[in-house]
Order: sequence, then structure tokens, then C-alpha cells
Amino acid sequence: MAVRADLNISLDGYASTTDQTPENPFGEDWGRLVAAYTATRTFRERVLGDSSGEGTTGVDDRYGAAYFENIGAEIMGAGMFGLHNFPDDRDWRGWWGEEPPFRCPVFVLTHDADRDPIVFANGTEFRFLAASPDEALALATDAAGGEDVRIGGGVDTVRSFLAAGLIDRLHVGITPILLGRGQNLWAELRGLESDYTVTSEVAESGVVHVTFARG
Amino acid sequence: MAVRADLNISLDGYASTTDQTPENPFGEDWGRLVAAYTATRTFRERVLGDSSGEGTTGVDDRYGAAYFENIGAEIMGAGMFGLHNFPDDRDWRGWWGEEPPFRCPVFVLTHDADRDPIVFANGTEFRFLAASPDEALALATDAAGGEDVRIGGGVDTVRSFLAAGLIDRLHVGITPILLGRGQNLWAELRGLESDYTVTSEVAESGVVHVTFARG
Repeated sequence: MAVRADLNISLDGYASTTDQTPENPFGEDWGRLVAAYTATRTFRERVLGDSSGEGTTGVDDRYGAAYFENIGAEIMGAGMFGLHNFPDDRDWRGWWGEEPPFRCPVFVLTHDADRDPIVFANGTEFRFLAASPDEALALATDAAGGEDVRIGGGVDTVRSFLAAGLIDRLHVGITPILLGRGQNLWAELRGLESDYTVTSEVAESGVVHVTFARG
Repeated sequence: MAVRADLNISLDGYASTTDQTPENPFGEDWGRLVAAYTATRTFRERVLGDSSGEGTTGVDDRYGAAYFENIGAEIMGAGMFGLHNFPDDRDWRGWWGEEPPFRCPVFVLTHDADRDPIVFANGTEFRFLAASPDEALALATDAAGGEDVRIGGGVDTVRSFLAAGLIDRLHVGITPILLGRGQNLWAELRGLESDYTVTSEVAESGVVHVTFARG
């Protein structure tokens, strides 16, 4: 069992964007940040439900596919689920429609945890809880039944698990653009590499995949 | 004629370090930041004057060798020359001993420009001036006689030339460590990539070489 996280970041370390509008809740920068990932066949199949077989199949797709392998439970922050965008909508069911790509229990960390679980036919089940990283990880590990636990995001949720020393493998896809604003993955993580072996690989798209792996 | 800059930075963007002491004027972080470069055969030959042929000869060395090719003049900041460390030493001749690795005119930008040029037998000549990036580049271009001009550093000098749109090719060697402090190359450079083609390559050492090239 390993605890894993994957993020797309800019060359200057930003994993979140700040140009969101009500009409474009992810913002234009977000599209540029994740363009190589959303072009992959895995993303199209697994997140968009596109079974045409279209999409890129190179290095980016290999990382995209690995993202979905052997995950038994996920932990995400309230922002990634959308609670910051729709705090008063008690019927909000996440961004992903009726086929969320998780297919496992997903623990959503929120102070507003008095929400019923949301269960989907494909195995995805969102559960809401107010908990520390350690507490949430204990629950998710139990739910994962021996498979890996993914810390899905957003960036401050991943950072809190990194700071607590709870992540065994961190993969970042670095898009060679400079955003200059947002939340920086690397802030306050001086010396993180000392607990990991770090390897890098450049994809055909120009994205640089950097992996921090323990041991 | 192209204007070029090369820097070693950490994964979180820091190109300068903050743990300097009088005994160790570069600091321990600096040694970690440039370890792959200082291990190259080119660095050992060209900067240390070691003609033994020892040192690495892979991707890092290729970039190291390119650093010295076709340079007709260099511009550097006062800090890189050492004026911030030894402001009152009028006999200070730089960090590099009597064989500075430049072998061309080097324009040192300083408000304390009332200093005589320092001429070395190997072609290196330090000249001191108070000038804007544009003014300094005009002088350096003239001195370079058709060869390239290198913006040598430190990081704020390179950043000022980048911000002024004066750099044709920027190469950064990204060492996969997180320093968490110092001067960040990427600060306030949002959108820089839009003027360049960006390519990346991973060296045997694990350093990721990223190049911004115009056109």
C-alpha cells in the first residue's frame, strides 16, 4: 500500500490558477496547465467517457494511465470537489457528472462535513469529513483494502500531506509555462527531496514528469 | 549575434542561495545547486584549470561546453563579481584568480563604477559601469565583435534582462532539490514562454535542462 499524489504544475511551481470566472470555473490558465494531460487517450476514455480510442499515447498517456492504476481510495480537499464554488448547494454532486472517474471511496475533507455520502453506480462514493491528514489517511487506507490511496488535490491538500510526511510517491507533470500566480506547490517544502529518490523524464509534448519516490 | 544566459536553479526556482558565511562565501546550498555542473570535464578544465581530462562527459558537460562557445563579451552584476562581499577592497579582482574563465571583455554593472578596468593575460578584462540593461548590452555587443553576449548573472541581473526582452536564449539547469529561499528566477515573469520555444532534456545526473529559445 502506497500513498500517492499527482499534480500538474507550471515551471514556476503553480498548481492552481487564479483566473476563474463564474462562466469558466477552471480558468484559462488551467486549460494550458493540463493541456497535455487532457489530450491523452487515458483522460479521454477515463474522464470524458470517450471510447473512440482517440488521444495521445506517449509518455503523458503512460503517466495518465498510471494515475488510475491500483487506487483503492482517494482523499481530496473541499475545493477540488467544488464546495468553495457552490457552498450553499446541498445537491452539488461534484464536477464529474454521473460517471465520476474515481470508482472507489473518495474522502472529501471539509469543515462542512454534515453531508450525506453520495453514491454512484460505478463505485464512486463521496464521503465528507472534517479530519487531520493522519485521521483521513487511516480511514482511506482501511477503505482501500490493500490498494493505494491517492491524495487527489488540490494543491494545499497535497501540501498538507507532504508536510506531514505521508506521501510515498509524488508525481508532478511540469508544463513549461510561467503562471506567476496561484498556489505554489513548492512553498515551504525546503529539503523535501531528502526523503525521496527523484527521477525525471521529458514527454513528447514538452511536459517534464518529475517523480519523488521513497526508498 | 545572440544574447544568452545560463543559470543553475533548484526545482522551486531559486538561483541564489542564502546560507553564505564569511568562511564559505558561496554557501552549502550553492554547492548542491551546481554539483552536476562542477563535476563536468568542461568545468574542471575551463574554470579550475584542471587538464587531467577528468570529469563527467554526458549531457551536463555538453551544456557546460556550450556555455563557453562563441562568447565575445559578458555582462554580470556587481554581486556575481563579488563587490557586495568586498565593497571596500579596491584591489578585489573577482573570485577567479589570475585565469578567469571568461577570456573576453566582462562588463560589471555597479553603481560604484569609478574603478579602473582589470586586464588579465588570458583576454579577460573587467570593466565597471553604471548602466541600464539596454546601454550595457549596446556596449557589450560592440565589444563582442559579432560573437554572442552572455548575461552571466546573478539572478537579478538575468531577470532584469529577461524583463527587458533582451535575452534570445535562456538555458536553466534545474537541480531536483528544493531550496525554499533565495532569489527566485521565475518571480514576475508570467507569460515569458510566449516569446520562446521551450525544450527540455534530462541529464544522467538527474538535472533537467530547459532552454527558452527565440523563434
